[in-house]
Amino acid sequence: MECLQCVKHHGGHVLKLRHTSQVLGCAMQFTLFLPPQPPAISVPTLIWLSGLTCTEDNFAQKAGAFRTAARLGLMVVCPDTSPRGLQLPGETDSWSFGEGASFYVDATTPTYARYQMASYVARELPALLAAHPQIPYDAARVSISGHSMGGHGALVLSLRHPGQFQSVSAFAPIANPMQCAWGRTAFEGYLGTEKMTSRDGRTQSSWAVWDASELAAVYSGPPLAVLVDQGTADNFYADGQLRPQALKDGAARNPEGRFNLQLRMQEGYDHSYYFVSTFIEEHLLFHAKHLGIAV
Amino acid sequence: MECLQCVKHHGGHVLKLRHTSQVLGCAMQFTLFLPPQPPAISVPTLIWLSGLTCTEDNFAQKAGAFRTAARLGLMVVCPDTSPRGLQLPGETDSWSFGEGASFYVDATTPTYARYQMASYVARELPALLAAHPQIPYDAARVSISGHSMGGHGALVLSLRHPGQFQSVSAFAPIANPMQCAWGRTAFEGYLGTEKMTSRDGRTQSSWAVWDASELAAVYSGPPLAVLVDQGTADNFYADGQLRPQALKDGAARNPEGRFNLQLRMQEGYDHSYYFVSTFIEEHLLFHAKHLGIAV
Repeated sequence: MECLQCVKHHGGHVLKLRHTSQVLGCAMQFTLFLPPQPPAISVPTLIWLSGLTCTEDNFAQKAGAFRTAARLGLMVVCPDTSPRGLQLPGETDSWSFGEGASFYVDATTPTYARYQMASYVARELPALLAAHPQIPYDAARVSISGHSMGGHGALVLSLRHPGQFQSVSAFAPIANPMQCAWGRTAFEGYLGTEKMTSRDGRTQSSWAVWDASELAAVYSGPPLAVLVDQGTADNFYADGQLRPQALKDGAARNPEGRFNLQLRMQEGYDHSYYFVSTFIEEHLLFHAKHLGIAV
Repeated sequence: MECLQCVKHHGGHVLKLRHTSQVLGCAMQFTLFLPPQPPAISVPTLIWLSGLTCTEDNFAQKAGAFRTAARLGLMVVCPDTSPRGLQLPGETDSWSFGEGASFYVDATTPTYARYQMASYVARELPALLAAHPQIPYDAARVSISGHSMGGHGALVLSLRHPGQFQSVSAFAPIANPMQCAWGRTAFEGYLGTEKMTSRDGRTQSSWAVWDASELAAVYSGPPLAVLVDQGTADNFYADGQLRPQALKDGAARNPEGRFNLQLRMQEGYDHSYYFVSTFIEEHLLFHAKHLGIAV
């Protein structure tokens, strides 16, 4: 692992790190915020997943989150949003598919088989952090959050890996990708044509295992604390790309109420980082509570 | 004046505004943060001047300042860093001269005569804000701050317009441009060849009237409260482009101590917005005190 940049910030440090991903087969960069802390003491971690077109930089530069993370002693890990430089057919034709737009799934189509971002984020990256002696990663205290496509990623990964994350939150997540234009295009490209099967008299889509609203309804792991903020002046919300109501319905359908969703509609806020940075402190405090951090 | 964007943020709004500058003879954009407040009540203002290569966006997106500004009820105005689109010879050849690099002077060379950024920032823009019925600008309560080239601009404008600003602060300012490579190139291009004159047995440079360290030594206006932060790991500081010690020396030479400089060397911080955003809250609280805001 190579350190490309190490900058002091709020008493801690922002690191830009590069490594070769075995899962993705390419070089990957991520940003790491190391809070000020005594050396050799492990700290809780928040994994942040960014949205369409983003890189490992956007959250670090625009969210204003590390001030509170420094105070809480919280490490923050910001992966990139897709593999880079694979030169797959169609990979850079659209801003909402391919590079910068992985949707954090493990792809199954032959063309995009190397887009294994779910495995990268949930398995390879944590293992890399845990194995590095200079990174004070504590695998038992990790939460996850994200914005838009990254909010979808955070929700889906927390639902697919019960118990791995102490809490999950999202800003304007693509909460029901099977039922929106962005998601359907992405799932077609990464997962192949949707297949409908019948089981117990219910019709099931092959895409449902990557859809937070579908997963929330059937989640049977440890009770999961979920905070979602959605701005009411968000164009993509108005366009039907985000569908927070579907997530709420999914949570309500969960037979044992194991998906404890707090959905907050934020009056007048849009989809930008001005929205994220307004509420990020509340999200960090929410995760802190579930990570056992004294606030 | 045209509003290109209005985004809710920390209960207030970030506006991107465009107008035609009479002084510069081109369209100019600036960012305005309007704190949450009852309509028709004027509020104190901080003018922020950005550094080389920046636009009206950098501070708004990266400094994380509007959270505190919202709490304080402080309006923030972020002008662009130069005229745009004038198509002058050499205007876009270098990142440290011309577009994005005005140095906030009123140029006197024939080629750059339209670079009247000092007049734009200190005169035209405040008049524009004051004249607009929907902007709650209070000309009696204005402070100024900036980063790098913008720190130079903030210091110089506060020194050249005694009493106009209630306080001034700067992050890693180009504090003695006459004596650094960036400044000498810029002053040559905007102000013409340096001319030395003798008066009262002292040699005086024609450039000194745009150099904060020189102006601080002879400032005779109302006592000026000045806060400057400089990171010790700042490459440009090491390269001699910033010279905070010269500013300190200038302040010490002021016969009546009217330039009340608090210079803080911040251990391990660099020149980036990770440095600015770490200390911006303290700067806003410093200005709040001098603007009569109850904290």
